[in-house]
Amino acid sequence: MEAPVTRELAEWTVGLTGSDIPETVRAEGVRTFVNWLGCAVGGSSHETVDRALAAVRPFSGEKRAQIIARDVRLDELHAALVNGISSHVLDYDDTHLKTIIHPAGPVASAILAVAESRNVSGADFLTALVTGVEVECRIGNSVYPDHYDRGWHITGTAGVFGAAAATGRLLGLDARQMTWAYGIAATQSSGFREMFGTMCKSFHPGRAAQNGAMAAFLAAAGFDSSERAIEAPRGFANVMSTKQDYTEILGGLGKTWEAALNSYKPFACGIVIHPTIDGCQQLREKLGDRVRSIRSVALRTHPLVLELTGKRTPSTGLEGKFSVYHAAATALLRGDGSPTAFTDEIVRDGEIIALRDKVTAEADGTVHEDAVHIRVTFEDGSTTDLHVEHAIGSLSRPLSDTEISRKFSRQSEPVLGESPTAALLEAAWALESLDDVSALARLSAASN
Amino acid sequence: MEAPVTRELAEWTVGLTGSDIPETVRAEGVRTFVNWLGCAVGGSSHETVDRALAAVRPFSGEKRAQIIARDVRLDELHAALVNGISSHVLDYDDTHLKTIIHPAGPVASAILAVAESRNVSGADFLTALVTGVEVECRIGNSVYPDHYDRGWHITGTAGVFGAAAATGRLLGLDARQMTWAYGIAATQSSGFREMFGTMCKSFHPGRAAQNGAMAAFLAAAGFDSSERAIEAPRGFANVMSTKQDYTEILGGLGKTWEAALNSYKPFACGIVIHPTIDGCQQLREKLGDRVRSIRSVALRTHPLVLELTGKRTPSTGLEGKFSVYHAAATALLRGDGSPTAFTDEIVRDGEIIALRDKVTAEADGTVHEDAVHIRVTFEDGSTTDLHVEHAIGSLSRPLSDTEISRKFSRQSEPVLGESPTAALLEAAWALESLDDVSALARLSAASN
Repeated sequence: MEAPVTRELAEWTVGLTGSDIPETVRAEGVRTFVNWLGCAVGGSSHETVDRALAAVRPFSGEKRAQIIARDVRLDELHAALVNGISSHVLDYDDTHLKTIIHPAGPVASAILAVAESRNVSGADFLTALVTGVEVECRIGNSVYPDHYDRGWHITGTAGVFGAAAATGRLLGLDARQMTWAYGIAATQSSGFREMFGTMCKSFHPGRAAQNGAMAAFLAAAGFDSSERAIEAPRGFANVMSTKQDYTEILGGLGKTWEAALNSYKPFACGIVIHPTIDGCQQLREKLGDRVRSIRSVALRTHPLVLELTGKRTPSTGLEGKFSVYHAAATALLRGDGSPTAFTDEIVRDGEIIALRDKVTAEADGTVHEDAVHIRVTFEDGSTTDLHVEHAIGSLSRPLSDTEISRKFSRQSEPVLGESPTAALLEAAWALESLDDVSALARLSAASN
Repeated sequence: MEAPVTRELAEWTVGLTGSDIPETVRAEGVRTFVNWLGCAVGGSSHETVDRALAAVRPFSGEKRAQIIARDVRLDELHAALVNGISSHVLDYDDTHLKTIIHPAGPVASAILAVAESRNVSGADFLTALVTGVEVECRIGNSVYPDHYDRGWHITGTAGVFGAAAATGRLLGLDARQMTWAYGIAATQSSGFREMFGTMCKSFHPGRAAQNGAMAAFLAAAGFDSSERAIEAPRGFANVMSTKQDYTEILGGLGKTWEAALNSYKPFACGIVIHPTIDGCQQLREKLGDRVRSIRSVALRTHPLVLELTGKRTPSTGLEGKFSVYHAAATALLRGDGSPTAFTDEIVRDGEIIALRDKVTAEADGTVHEDAVHIRVTFEDGSTTDLHVEHAIGSLSRPLSDTEISRKFSRQSEPVLGESPTAALLEAAWALESLDDVSALARLSAASN
């Protein structure tokens, strides 16, 4: 019989206090929150969110929770769903690089909604957020990569545990109830990678937030479950993975922190193009107007770049995210790697297309995944070389707080306007000192 | 590339008309419905339902749907959840024997709730029900037994497709929307066998009903999905099973009917004890008062009976369901195999215990799973033998309509009372002729 993994994890989850989390980890938690909130604002007007809202509004209970950057309130569980969709729909959110989990979506979406009507302090909220992220990433580690390789979208499948953990803390579950909450979460774990490229991709973190939160509410009402849902022969790890390494869940719990290893995308596309965009932005800074007299751009990249993003002639914004040629051209001409670099309009822009067609890429197995070599040749035959060793946003070159703020503002200002953006951003960074996080939820409304 | 399984199934689902379903299959659909409704009434006051209701009521939207045999109304999606739990919580519902799917729970729970405020005729309701059952059983067949053996509770994992199909018909989805609905259903497919013996077991059909219905509402709002969710390399069948036989889904579609193969449990316990209860009930009829002068009862059964239900001294009602000795004694002394045969009280009854201790069982590999040999020896040394070749409730000896009615009344009368039970039962059998099934929903309320 396996050690009682689920039970021990539950005991840790409910026993933790805020001061058990090191300052550096709490600080990373705040960065996770600010980045998540900016992405949720940025994605809030996406068609995917419109359609989800149209479908679920008629089923909402009492409207106690804010839909971020919209003029809509729903019950907590539906708000968790919709905000989870908003925060992931642009593929611009955070990444736990070891597992490719996008940790904040399932967790923060659940607890901001739940906290709003429950008088939760910023400090308690942050503790719940860090705990939830820690739980989902550790559970992810225990089954990655086999689980992901089989076809599971791990942000959904592991995320539901994170949402249950964080919500369970806000509801004050005891250890037994938390064990049940993990069981009820486990038995809802779902989401296929087949859904990538459809609206269901962002549905996964949204639904994980909603289902994990619901698991906590059910457990609080005494709805019971297996107490070995993670490790049982017919439980999560054995049914959904060929790898089960429970030391990844219990080993060093409370000592080493996966939540400290979160990273934030500087660019709104798959992570393999990030070195190229980073390098081309640096070249633009250096070259100024000379970007208009480029004859050719030669990239030498990790082979995965061409495999995943080798689209030569993208015709939509979404396809643009899978074209390293488009990304290079847009970074050189506009300096942009944000969502505005991947609209239908920009992909069809004549100047971008002209430069895009001058970009070539060569796969080189000796180039690391977060590196790139770029050679620009000008019309006069002269050349400039640039080597990116570690792309911005990687763990070796994390986004600074200022860069996270800039990313936030760039997403939020077109949606909420300048002054509300500044107020929301300030409140988000001040998370730990807030008496009641409902103030934040109010600031995130479309009209405030 | 596989044939477009999901798409072809969706086209069939939306293209079918009521007259495409043979009369015999429609009649089996009515039996499925009556049996389901009786079980939902019978399970409605279970503690599992109480706790689920306590947890979800605060999140209910406008109260458009009846919770069966309670004085509560919720929005359609929450009603689907709760009624799905009620109908399965006593382990007394229907069984598609090839896959061990309990088909009605996910499908009927979804559409009775959705139909209530939409003016749906009984005939259209029945067409949706049969379609949903057909879809979930065919998808189940395509992955059974590998999928079940891996640990998936197939009533949840396949049931969500049935709920999506049936709800999609009521909402009038077109083929593309139905394809999306199947995708949104697929990516929520979940539920572990590890949950057996806990409240989460009946949560599975409830949640499948709710999630499948939600998938249809999302698809109706244009929320898109993969259009190959069942057959894609990273879709349902490949991720959740090692067996994928799509001819089970598309072969003979509309010609052969899995929905015609539904069966109805005569007794509220695991199907392996059913021959013993059946035989002991027959003996009681034959023996009358002589059951009080029994010296011993010797059973010769299929080996699985002892493996699964060999508990000698059960101390709770739930344990009683796993004791062939208790079941035999109760059937002989009370003639009972219904839920009242498996209460804590009856398991602790002195007379039952005394007879239970006189029962012995011998495993015999030559005895078929739905058969039993019983020898009763009396205090005077005389003996009586009985051989059950096919237990009642098996496909060879299906419950008659009268027996289904008796099962219904026995569950419903203690909950709703005699006269409301009779009215509800009459309306249920008359399903096809109802102008509006909301009449049925109203009759199922606790106070009517």
